[in-house]
Amino acid sequence: MYEILHRVGVIAPAEDVFKALTTVEGLAGWWTEDTTGEGDILRFRFPPGGFDMRVLETRPAEFVRWEVAEGPEEWVGTEIHFELRQEGEFTIVLFKHEGWRERVEFMNHCSTKWATFLMSMKRLVETGKGEPSPHDVQISDWH
Amino acid sequence: MYEILHRVGVIAPAEDVFKALTTVEGLAGWWTEDTTGEGDILRFRFPPGGFDMRVLETRPAEFVRWEVAEGPEEWVGTEIHFELRQEGEFTIVLFKHEGWRERVEFMNHCSTKWATFLMSMKRLVETGKGEPSPHDVQISDWH
Repeated sequence: MYEILHRVGVIAPAEDVFKALTTVEGLAGWWTEDTTGEGDILRFRFPPGGFDMRVLETRPAEFVRWEVAEGPEEWVGTEIHFELRQEGEFTIVLFKHEGWRERVEFMNHCSTKWATFLMSMKRLVETGKGEPSPHDVQISDWH
Repeated sequence: MYEILHRVGVIAPAEDVFKALTTVEGLAGWWTEDTTGEGDILRFRFPPGGFDMRVLETRPAEFVRWEVAEGPEEWVGTEIHFELRQEGEFTIVLFKHEGWRERVEFMNHCSTKWATFLMSMKRLVETGKGEPSPHDVQISDWH
Protein backbone atom coordinates (compact mmCIF):
# COMPACT_ATOMS: atom_id res chain seq x y z
CA MET A 1 0.00 0.00 0.00
CA TYR A 2 1.21 3.47 -0.85
CA GLU A 3 0.32 6.89 0.50
CA ILE A 4 0.55 10.58 -0.21
CA LEU A 5 1.71 12.82 2.65
CA HIS A 6 1.67 16.60 3.05
CA ARG A 7 2.09 19.20 5.78
CA VAL A 8 0.97 22.82 5.72
CA GLY A 9 0.70 25.40 8.47
CA VAL A 10 -2.24 27.79 8.43
CA ILE A 11 -1.99 31.04 10.36
CA ALA A 12 -5.44 30.73 11.98
CA PRO A 13 -7.17 28.92 14.85
CA ALA A 14 -7.71 25.17 14.37
CA GLU A 15 -11.48 25.80 14.52
CA ASP A 16 -11.26 27.83 11.29
CA VAL A 17 -9.29 25.12 9.49
CA PHE A 18 -11.73 22.48 10.73
CA LYS A 19 -14.60 24.52 9.28
CA ALA A 20 -12.84 24.68 5.89
CA LEU A 21 -12.61 20.86 5.97
CA THR A 22 -16.09 20.02 7.21
CA THR A 23 -18.59 22.48 5.72
CA VAL A 24 -19.82 22.57 2.13
CA GLU A 25 -19.07 26.30 2.03
CA GLY A 26 -15.53 25.77 3.29
CA LEU A 27 -14.76 22.88 0.94
CA ALA A 28 -16.24 24.78 -2.02
CA GLY A 29 -13.85 27.61 -1.19
CA TRP A 30 -10.65 25.66 -1.74
CA TRP A 31 -11.23 22.30 -3.50
CA THR A 32 -14.08 22.64 -5.96
CA GLU A 33 -16.92 25.13 -6.22
CA ASP A 34 -19.15 22.20 -7.18
CA THR A 35 -19.38 20.65 -3.70
CA THR A 36 -22.60 19.30 -2.21
CA GLY A 37 -23.41 17.25 0.88
CA GLU A 38 -26.11 14.78 1.84
CA GLY A 39 -26.05 12.77 5.06
CA ASP A 40 -22.50 11.49 5.59
CA ILE A 41 -21.63 11.86 1.88
CA LEU A 42 -19.78 14.82 0.36
CA ARG A 43 -19.85 15.10 -3.45
CA PHE A 44 -17.00 16.90 -5.19
CA ARG A 45 -17.27 17.51 -8.93
CA PHE A 46 -14.59 18.78 -11.33
CA PRO A 47 -14.77 19.39 -15.09
CA PRO A 48 -13.41 15.88 -15.85
CA GLY A 49 -15.30 13.93 -13.13
CA GLY A 50 -15.34 13.77 -9.38
CA PHE A 51 -15.35 12.00 -6.05
CA ASP A 52 -17.89 11.06 -3.39
CA MET A 53 -16.45 10.95 0.11
CA ARG A 54 -18.01 9.21 3.08
CA VAL A 55 -17.20 11.12 6.26
CA LEU A 56 -16.02 8.39 8.64
CA GLU A 57 -14.85 10.50 11.55
CA THR A 58 -14.63 14.11 12.70
CA ARG A 59 -13.24 15.43 15.98
CA PRO A 60 -13.71 19.21 16.25
CA ALA A 61 -10.50 21.16 15.57
CA GLU A 62 -8.50 17.90 15.60
CA PHE A 63 -9.24 15.30 12.96
CA VAL A 64 -11.19 14.54 9.79
CA ARG A 65 -11.31 11.17 8.03
CA TRP A 66 -12.98 10.39 4.71
CA GLU A 67 -13.33 7.19 2.72
CA VAL A 68 -13.62 7.46 -1.05
CA ALA A 69 -17.03 5.96 -1.88
CA GLU A 70 -17.10 6.80 -5.60
CA GLY A 71 -14.55 8.14 -8.05
CA PRO A 72 -11.66 6.97 -10.19
CA GLU A 73 -10.96 3.26 -9.68
CA GLU A 74 -7.58 3.98 -8.05
CA TRP A 75 -9.28 6.14 -5.40
CA VAL A 76 -12.23 3.97 -4.39
CA GLY A 77 -11.68 2.51 -0.93
CA THR A 78 -8.70 4.75 -0.14
CA GLU A 79 -8.85 7.06 2.88
CA ILE A 80 -8.00 10.72 3.36
CA HIS A 81 -6.99 12.00 6.77
CA PHE A 82 -6.51 15.56 8.01
CA GLU A 83 -4.89 15.81 11.44
CA LEU A 84 -4.82 19.27 13.04
CA ARG A 85 -2.80 20.67 15.90
CA GLN A 86 -2.00 24.15 17.15
CA GLU A 87 1.68 25.18 17.06
CA GLY A 88 2.05 28.81 18.15
CA GLU A 89 0.19 31.01 15.66
CA PHE A 90 -0.05 28.11 13.17
CA THR A 91 -2.54 25.30 12.82
CA ILE A 92 -0.48 22.44 11.46
CA VAL A 93 -2.36 20.19 9.04
CA LEU A 94 -0.94 16.71 8.53
CA PHE A 95 -2.51 15.27 5.41
CA LYS A 96 -2.51 11.61 4.39
CA HIS A 97 -4.16 9.91 1.41
CA GLU A 98 -3.61 6.23 2.16
CA GLY A 99 -4.52 2.87 0.72
CA TRP A 100 -3.28 3.28 -2.87
CA ARG A 101 -2.92 -0.27 -4.16
CA GLU A 102 -0.49 0.54 -6.97
CA ARG A 103 2.17 3.16 -7.51
CA VAL A 104 0.65 4.45 -10.73
CA GLU A 105 1.53 7.72 -12.49
CA PHE A 106 -1.86 9.08 -11.42
CA MET A 107 -0.55 8.91 -7.84
CA ASN A 108 2.31 11.28 -8.77
CA HIS A 109 -0.27 13.65 -10.24
CA CYS A 110 -2.60 13.48 -7.25
CA SER A 111 0.30 14.12 -4.86
CA THR A 112 1.23 17.40 -6.57
CA LYS A 113 -2.41 18.36 -7.02
CA TRP A 114 -3.18 17.76 -3.31
CA ALA A 115 -0.27 20.07 -2.44
CA THR A 116 -1.63 22.89 -4.57
CA PHE A 117 -5.16 22.39 -3.16
CA LEU A 118 -3.85 22.38 0.43
CA MET A 119 -2.10 25.68 -0.35
CA SER A 120 -5.48 26.89 -1.68
CA MET A 121 -7.06 25.85 1.64
CA LYS A 122 -4.34 27.73 3.54
CA ARG A 123 -5.01 30.87 1.47
CA LEU A 124 -8.78 30.54 1.90
CA VAL A 125 -8.54 30.38 5.68
CA GLU A 126 -5.89 33.11 5.93
CA THR A 127 -7.26 35.56 3.35
CA GLY A 128 -10.85 34.50 2.63
CA LYS A 129 -10.01 33.53 -0.96
CA GLY A 130 -8.83 30.12 -2.17
CA GLU A 131 -8.37 28.74 -5.68
CA PRO A 132 -11.00 25.99 -5.98
CA SER A 133 -11.79 24.21 -9.26
CA PRO A 134 -12.46 25.47 -11.94
CA HIS A 135 -10.07 28.29 -10.93
CA ASP A 136 -7.37 25.91 -9.68
CA VAL A 137 -3.72 26.09 -10.68
CA GLN A 138 -2.97 23.95 -13.74
CA ILE A 139 0.03 21.75 -13.02
CA SER A 140 0.19 19.66 -16.24
CA ASP A 141 -1.67 18.20 -19.24
CA TRP A 142 -3.82 16.27 -16.72
CA HIS A 143 -4.78 19.63 -15.24
CA MET B 1 11.18 2.36 2.57
CA TYR B 2 8.96 5.34 1.74
CA GLU B 3 8.95 7.76 -1.17
CA ILE B 4 7.63 11.12 -2.29
CA LEU B 5 6.09 11.27 -5.78
CA HIS B 6 5.11 14.23 -7.95
CA ARG B 7 4.17 14.95 -11.56
CA VAL B 8 4.21 18.31 -13.33
CA GLY B 9 3.94 19.20 -17.00
CA VAL B 10 6.08 22.03 -18.33
CA ILE B 11 5.06 23.73 -21.57
CA ALA B 12 8.55 23.68 -23.08
CA PRO B 13 10.94 21.29 -24.84
CA ALA B 14 12.48 18.56 -22.66
CA GLU B 15 15.92 20.06 -23.36
CA ASP B 16 14.91 23.24 -21.51
CA VAL B 17 13.65 21.31 -18.49
CA PHE B 18 16.82 19.20 -18.49
CA LYS B 19 18.87 22.41 -18.42
CA ALA B 20 16.90 23.66 -15.39
CA LEU B 21 17.77 20.40 -13.62
CA THR B 22 21.42 20.08 -14.56
CA THR B 23 23.01 23.55 -14.62
CA VAL B 24 23.90 25.71 -11.62
CA GLU B 25 22.13 28.64 -13.28
CA GLY B 26 18.96 26.58 -13.85
CA LEU B 27 18.87 25.09 -10.35
CA ALA B 28 19.53 28.52 -8.79
CA GLY B 29 16.51 29.80 -10.72
CA TRP B 30 13.95 27.54 -9.04
CA TRP B 31 15.33 25.76 -5.94
CA THR B 32 17.78 28.03 -4.16
CA GLU B 33 19.77 31.01 -5.35
CA ASP B 34 22.66 29.69 -3.26
CA THR B 35 23.58 26.79 -5.57
CA THR B 36 27.15 25.86 -6.45
CA GLY B 37 28.71 22.91 -8.23
CA GLU B 38 32.08 21.17 -8.08
CA GLY B 39 32.84 17.92 -9.91
CA ASP B 40 29.84 15.62 -9.50
CA ILE B 41 28.62 17.45 -6.38
CA LEU B 42 25.90 20.10 -6.33
CA ARG B 43 25.62 22.19 -3.15
CA PHE B 44 22.24 23.72 -2.29
CA ARG B 45 22.06 26.10 0.66
CA PHE B 46 18.97 27.57 2.35
CA PRO B 47 18.71 29.94 5.32
CA PRO B 48 18.34 27.02 7.77
CA GLY B 49 20.88 24.62 6.20
CA GLY B 50 21.22 22.66 3.00
CA PHE B 51 21.99 19.60 0.94
CA ASP B 52 24.88 18.27 -1.11
CA MET B 53 23.79 16.08 -4.00
CA ARG B 54 26.01 13.65 -5.87
CA VAL B 55 24.91 13.48 -9.51
CA LEU B 56 24.75 9.73 -10.20
CA GLU B 57 23.26 9.75 -13.66
CA THR B 58 22.10 12.14 -16.39
CA ARG B 59 20.65 11.26 -19.79
CA PRO B 60 20.04 14.41 -21.88
CA ALA B 61 16.38 15.44 -21.98
CA GLU B 62 15.38 12.15 -20.29
CA PHE B 63 16.64 11.46 -16.79
CA VAL B 64 18.48 12.91 -13.80
CA ARG B 65 19.41 10.98 -10.67
CA TRP B 66 20.98 12.42 -7.51
CA GLU B 67 22.07 10.84 -4.25
CA VAL B 68 21.99 12.96 -1.11
CA ALA B 69 25.61 13.06 0.08
CA GLU B 70 25.17 15.58 2.92
CA GLY B 71 22.14 17.14 4.61
CA PRO B 72 19.56 16.37 7.27
CA GLU B 73 20.00 12.85 8.66
CA GLU B 74 16.68 11.73 7.12
CA TRP B 75 17.87 12.72 3.64
CA VAL B 76 21.39 11.26 3.60
CA GLY B 77 21.55 8.23 1.31
CA THR B 78 18.11 8.87 -0.24
CA GLU B 79 17.83 9.38 -4.00
CA ILE B 80 16.03 11.94 -6.10
CA HIS B 81 14.96 11.08 -9.64
CA PHE B 82 13.58 13.30 -12.39
CA GLU B 83 12.21 11.39 -15.39
CA LEU B 84 11.29 13.49 -18.45
CA ARG B 85 9.19 12.70 -21.49
CA GLN B 86 7.53 14.76 -24.18
CA GLU B 87 3.71 14.62 -24.32
CA GLY B 88 2.41 16.99 -27.00
CA GLU B 89 3.38 20.54 -26.01
CA PHE B 90 4.24 19.40 -22.46
CA THR B 91 7.39 17.95 -20.99
CA ILE B 92 6.12 15.63 -18.26
CA VAL B 93 8.37 15.47 -15.20
CA LEU B 94 7.96 12.43 -12.98
CA PHE B 95 9.64 13.17 -9.68
CA LYS B 96 10.59 10.63 -7.03
CA HIS B 97 12.43 11.12 -3.73
CA GLU B 98 13.00 7.56 -2.59
CA GLY B 99 14.72 5.72 0.22
CA TRP B 100 13.15 7.43 3.25
CA ARG B 101 13.72 4.99 6.10
CA GLU B 102 10.96 6.34 8.36
CA ARG B 103 7.63 8.02 7.75
CA VAL B 104 8.48 11.07 9.86
CA GLU B 105 6.58 14.37 9.89
CA PHE B 106 9.52 15.96 8.05
CA MET B 107 8.59 13.73 5.09
CA ASN B 108 5.11 15.33 4.97
CA HIS B 109 6.78 18.74 4.93
CA CYS B 110 9.28 17.81 2.22
CA SER B 111 6.51 16.37 0.04
CA THR B 112 4.56 19.65 0.03
CA LYS B 113 7.74 21.70 -0.32
CA TRP B 114 8.92 19.64 -3.33
CA ALA B 115 5.55 20.30 -4.98
CA THR B 116 5.90 24.06 -4.58
CA PHE B 117 9.52 23.96 -5.83
CA LEU B 118 8.53 21.85 -8.86
CA MET B 119 5.88 24.48 -9.64
CA SER B 120 8.67 27.06 -9.31
CA MET B 121 10.72 25.04 -11.83
CA LYS B 122 7.73 24.93 -14.20
CA ARG B 123 7.35 28.73 -13.95
CA LEU B 124 11.08 29.31 -14.44
CA VAL B 125 11.17 27.29 -17.65
CA GLU B 126 7.88 28.68 -18.98
CA THR B 127 8.31 32.34 -18.02
CA GLY B 128 12.00 32.84 -17.14
CA LYS B 129 11.20 33.51 -13.48
CA GLY B 130 10.93 30.93 -10.68
CA GLU B 131 10.63 31.34 -6.91
CA PRO B 132 13.89 29.96 -5.53
CA SER B 133 14.90 30.29 -1.87
CA PRO B 134 15.01 32.80 -0.20
CA HIS B 135 11.99 33.97 -2.24
CA ASP B 136 10.17 30.63 -1.99
CA VAL B 137 6.55 30.23 -0.92
CA GLN B 138 6.21 29.73 2.83
CA ILE B 139 4.01 26.71 3.48
CA SER B 140 4.23 26.48 7.30
CA ASP B 141 6.18 27.23 10.47
CA TRP B 142 8.97 25.01 9.06
CA HIS B 143 9.06 27.37 6.10
